[in-house]
Amino acid sequence: MQTDARTVPTFADVAAAADLISSRLVRTPVMSSPAFDKRADRRVVFKCENLQHGGAFKYRGALNAILPLAMAGNVSAVATHSSGNHGTAVALAAKVCGLDAYVVVPHDSAKPKIANIEQAGAELIFCEPGLPAREARLAEVMQRTGAHLVHPFDDARVIAGQGTATLELLTEEPNLDVVCTPVGGGGLIGGTALAAKAMAPQCRVIAAEPEKADDAYRSFREGKRLFVTLPATLADGLRGSIGALNFTLLQSHVDDVVTVTEREIVAAMRIVLQDLKLLIEPSSAVAVAAVLAGKLGNPGQRVGIIISGGNVDLDQCPFLRGATLT
Amino acid sequence: MQTDARTVPTFADVAAAADLISSRLVRTPVMSSPAFDKRADRRVVFKCENLQHGGAFKYRGALNAILPLAMAGNVSAVATHSSGNHGTAVALAAKVCGLDAYVVVPHDSAKPKIANIEQAGAELIFCEPGLPAREARLAEVMQRTGAHLVHPFDDARVIAGQGTATLELLTEEPNLDVVCTPVGGGGLIGGTALAAKAMAPQCRVIAAEPEKADDAYRSFREGKRLFVTLPATLADGLRGSIGALNFTLLQSHVDDVVTVTEREIVAAMRIVLQDLKLLIEPSSAVAVAAVLAGKLGNPGQRVGIIISGGNVDLDQCPFLRGATLT
Repeated sequence: MQTDARTVPTFADVAAAADLISSRLVRTPVMSSPAFDKRADRRVVFKCENLQHGGAFKYRGALNAILPLAMAGNVSAVATHSSGNHGTAVALAAKVCGLDAYVVVPHDSAKPKIANIEQAGAELIFCEPGLPAREARLAEVMQRTGAHLVHPFDDARVIAGQGTATLELLTEEPNLDVVCTPVGGGGLIGGTALAAKAMAPQCRVIAAEPEKADDAYRSFREGKRLFVTLPATLADGLRGSIGALNFTLLQSHVDDVVTVTEREIVAAMRIVLQDLKLLIEPSSAVAVAAVLAGKLGNPGQRVGIIISGGNVDLDQCPFLRGATLT
Repeated sequence: MQTDARTVPTFADVAAAADLISSRLVRTPVMSSPAFDKRADRRVVFKCENLQHGGAFKYRGALNAILPLAMAGNVSAVATHSSGNHGTAVALAAKVCGLDAYVVVPHDSAKPKIANIEQAGAELIFCEPGLPAREARLAEVMQRTGAHLVHPFDDARVIAGQGTATLELLTEEPNLDVVCTPVGGGGLIGGTALAAKAMAPQCRVIAAEPEKADDAYRSFREGKRLFVTLPATLADGLRGSIGALNFTLLQSHVDDVVTVTEREIVAAMRIVLQDLKLLIEPSSAVAVAAVLAGKLGNPGQRVGIIISGGNVDLDQCPFLRGATLT
């Protein structure tokens, strides 16, 4: 039975998503580094969704939402708004499923993400930053094209799809004490929490957020959804506020939300590059920064981190710049 | 029967090395990227030895040389000279085997490589750059300590160990048209050629070298060993000249040597970071640059590249610099 997009998903939806989409995903590696473990004073494993199709976990949710639409046969196009990675994921999933894709993109999104969406075959529609502008432009596009909405995070099938990353991680590493993901709209932490609490009840589930975009942190503590507007964080995937379905999951399935500074985010990106040889985007570095700051579990424990993506504008990154070799 | 270090090894030595050391290695992943394939107009797979213990393929050869010494029980220490990665590998392998390690290091080696050797537990001895200074200092150290030499490349057991990377690659990807590694002292290309010509006779074996350190290129063409002295290439692992055993293998088992420019090396590092999310060192980027320049096989063919290492001094890299976020 198809879960309605507007209901809170369950672990059964995550398991069903895995059955539906796993064969079409990159089975991303789980990596670790003795040097990183020493820094963190913990055993840390990284589920490398930066190596997923489209360079981010977002392909999981998009495919889990779009594949059933294509199989039902009564939809010819999908549409979404996205700061980048979800847009690429929708474009790629739509192409695989033979559908058209329209993606509304804030014009300040990271350039490689915009290029990825276009290369993946979607039609781009630019808008101003901020949720109201994005939603208004998306409504226009859907009216004009008849495209079906694939929401970036506030959708049960999207959330269930995102949870498959943690399902894979816990299949390989069942004895984690903590699992952590970054939180923006909350699709990743929502799906992760469903998978973790079902598969590894001993495992604490912690969301990590930039101090500068701390809506989930404050919402979790105050017990009601609070919002941020255009937060000035480098973590461009986490500038939105947590969605309604994911806030419900945050309250029922997540043990804590922690925050990190912009400086810690940049340091974490650099450390992962050095120790694990992996390029991760600032949004992913938020969870890494949390473990380096000692905010995930206790010394000696086993921590799993979902590396959400690796799409970095190398020209804009604070510690990377364009090659000017002469 | 133990192969003598000064004989030219055979594929049987590579196979024996795999039996001896595989269980103690990282089984490094074979990665690929649709975006990279489009750039290269070929299907390219990367054997990621930047994810090996010590961040380079060098651990394979070091362990294959040191483990039999430790098992024989009449050696208490090993020594070598190294621009970096071989030194770390010897230090790590010695520690695993319960031996002491002395490593002679040119003082201009990449800082993270020096730090790695020290952290791996070796005693460091600095020397001037250049092979004569390295060999002179190493002779002193061996005389003083009684340590057994583990040569960085001109040693049959080291060469056989390095070949196990390609043995693993061809086990997973048997239908490659070309396999390519960088060439410095030649241990990696020597071992690779042994594995490839035995396991995949159809597969061309090509060595890639910086234009600025083209001793193997010229040696291959002129049919006699030629040398370079302190070449000014960014590829710090490839500044030495090809060893005697490896030159023999180059003549008998390698199909071609190609060269690339410094600019191509930097561009290739950056492209791998963007497309594969992987940090590779300049020496590894030499082989990547060769495929991007169209010098490995023909459009549409399948190319395997051994990513030799990922130890980069982020502060010195031409397109990376220290974080100065304020």
